[in-house]
Amino acid sequence: MSLTVVGSVAFDGLETPFGKREKILGGAATHFSLSASFFTNVRIVGVVGNDFGAEEEQVFKNHNIDISDVERVSDGKTFFWRGRYEYDMNIARTLETRLNVFETFKPKLSEETKKSRLVFLANIQPDLQREVRDQIAGAELIGLDTMNLWIDIARESLLKTIAGVNILFINDAEARQLADEPNVIKAAQKILTWGPKYLVIKRGEYGAALFTKDTYFAIPAYPLESVFDPTGAGDTFAGGFMGYLDSQETLDEAAMRRAMIFGSVMASFNVEEFGTERVQRLTHNEINERFRAFKRMTHFEEIIFERAAKAAE
Amino acid sequence: MSLTVVGSVAFDGLETPFGKREKILGGAATHFSLSASFFTNVRIVGVVGNDFGAEEEQVFKNHNIDISDVERVSDGKTFFWRGRYEYDMNIARTLETRLNVFETFKPKLSEETKKSRLVFLANIQPDLQREVRDQIAGAELIGLDTMNLWIDIARESLLKTIAGVNILFINDAEARQLADEPNVIKAAQKILTWGPKYLVIKRGEYGAALFTKDTYFAIPAYPLESVFDPTGAGDTFAGGFMGYLDSQETLDEAAMRRAMIFGSVMASFNVEEFGTERVQRLTHNEINERFRAFKRMTHFEEIIFERAAKAAE
Repeated sequence: MSLTVVGSVAFDGLETPFGKREKILGGAATHFSLSASFFTNVRIVGVVGNDFGAEEEQVFKNHNIDISDVERVSDGKTFFWRGRYEYDMNIARTLETRLNVFETFKPKLSEETKKSRLVFLANIQPDLQREVRDQIAGAELIGLDTMNLWIDIARESLLKTIAGVNILFINDAEARQLADEPNVIKAAQKILTWGPKYLVIKRGEYGAALFTKDTYFAIPAYPLESVFDPTGAGDTFAGGFMGYLDSQETLDEAAMRRAMIFGSVMASFNVEEFGTERVQRLTHNEINERFRAFKRMTHFEEIIFERAAKAAE
Repeated sequence: MSLTVVGSVAFDGLETPFGKREKILGGAATHFSLSASFFTNVRIVGVVGNDFGAEEEQVFKNHNIDISDVERVSDGKTFFWRGRYEYDMNIARTLETRLNVFETFKPKLSEETKKSRLVFLANIQPDLQREVRDQIAGAELIGLDTMNLWIDIARESLLKTIAGVNILFINDAEARQLADEPNVIKAAQKILTWGPKYLVIKRGEYGAALFTKDTYFAIPAYPLESVFDPTGAGDTFAGGFMGYLDSQETLDEAAMRRAMIFGSVMASFNVEEFGTERVQRLTHNEINERFRAFKRMTHFEEIIFERAAKAAE
């Protein structure tokens, strides 16, 4: 089993009501791969600059993440993003974006990587996502993330990319915008006619939903008394989801549903501390314990109600 | 088993993007009692004017709802509310409120009503709710609804009322406002220190959650492709919840969880058509079928993940 993620490795500068970090390891592929590494073997296709050193490398090594397809640009700097979360923690305000080496990123896939069973195309320009997609024709399952920016400025290209993947991961607002339909259920059904068999809609503090043409599965978020840093929650979700799937032989809907839980479990840990700090020292026991908590908080007994004859008089 | 609701019987004028009704039967006690009537015997304590006629009476009779404690004021008109829903259907804009006979409403409970096993205090001024509460000291379980208006203008009285009930039904925003705490999970825990054993937080299109001091249960909403008229959804939820509970001998958390599903089922039907139109012609088969749908859309297999030795190499 093998899983590849194509996307950003970055440094983040973060400010939240709970504290501040000047420059910590971040990026979609970083969050995704750390999360997935608890379930399967992951490799990253990405690019970094000369400020990516032994310390950062060690984080990936510690989790058996293969970074041999991460291109090193010796005369450039790694993608840097600085943002601030206000009190409600739902919306990030971007303070600074330096694309650096990411600006001219052209994903280069080794022969080994091209044979990956599962692939996740993290949020990058949809033309690039499609170029990667065309090199991995043999993959059993391809997941895709995107964002409002591409819906706004590269809609036609994005629709072509969506048509070539199996699972799309977006949030409520993106689903509404993409389908141009205010009702999310209708929006989901519309998007599912464009190619993907599965659509995962992320709902932040309200959890997540998995749509197919015929079925609907929805779960709450793990109830957290404080969200410390939401950066990377979506990629951590996708990492738990795709990582768990890659550990399974059969990729049916039952597996997808368990993947939804593992995705939510991983995302719930991710937001408990800054950046990747919490996920880096996570254990399988903690993951399994929180999976069980999801069962406890969603379980109810199935019954058929029959009105007692006497009561109906 | 017996259930009493104290609250408004009203006429509503409604405008939605899907149509218009000039004057249809509405009010919290109406929506609640119709919903609960599918599960148990319900009685209403309320007040109506001389425009409440045989046609309205018949609706309650058809569902064996006891309206003998509904006071008739021969020289007044029934409470009337007119509102409009915009395209997103989440927020009602009040166009007109005529309290009429409801302005001086003093709930009068017959001896029979005072012996009710379960009581629901629909959204009215909290002093009045407490007056009722003091007359039903023997009730096994008391549910309470309220709204942002009373949190704003009658906070102290509301807190006293909350201290005397077993279940509080509010929405996310009200929970945050009531507890003065932006995190809903923290807000819920704070409110639970004030008296109620159970707190139900309604989340609209995102479903509902049941909090106790030690447990958390959350369910999605039934996925509807169109919401026709959300008026009365909260009271219909509470009616299904309390009605189902009254059909049960043991009021434990397992019963509360099933009550959450029945409440959501009833609310999902309520919003499919104007006012009480859909619920009036609902069948037990339809209710049970939708209950099963909730099981299908929340079920996943519980597992413990163990990383295969080979994969970890």
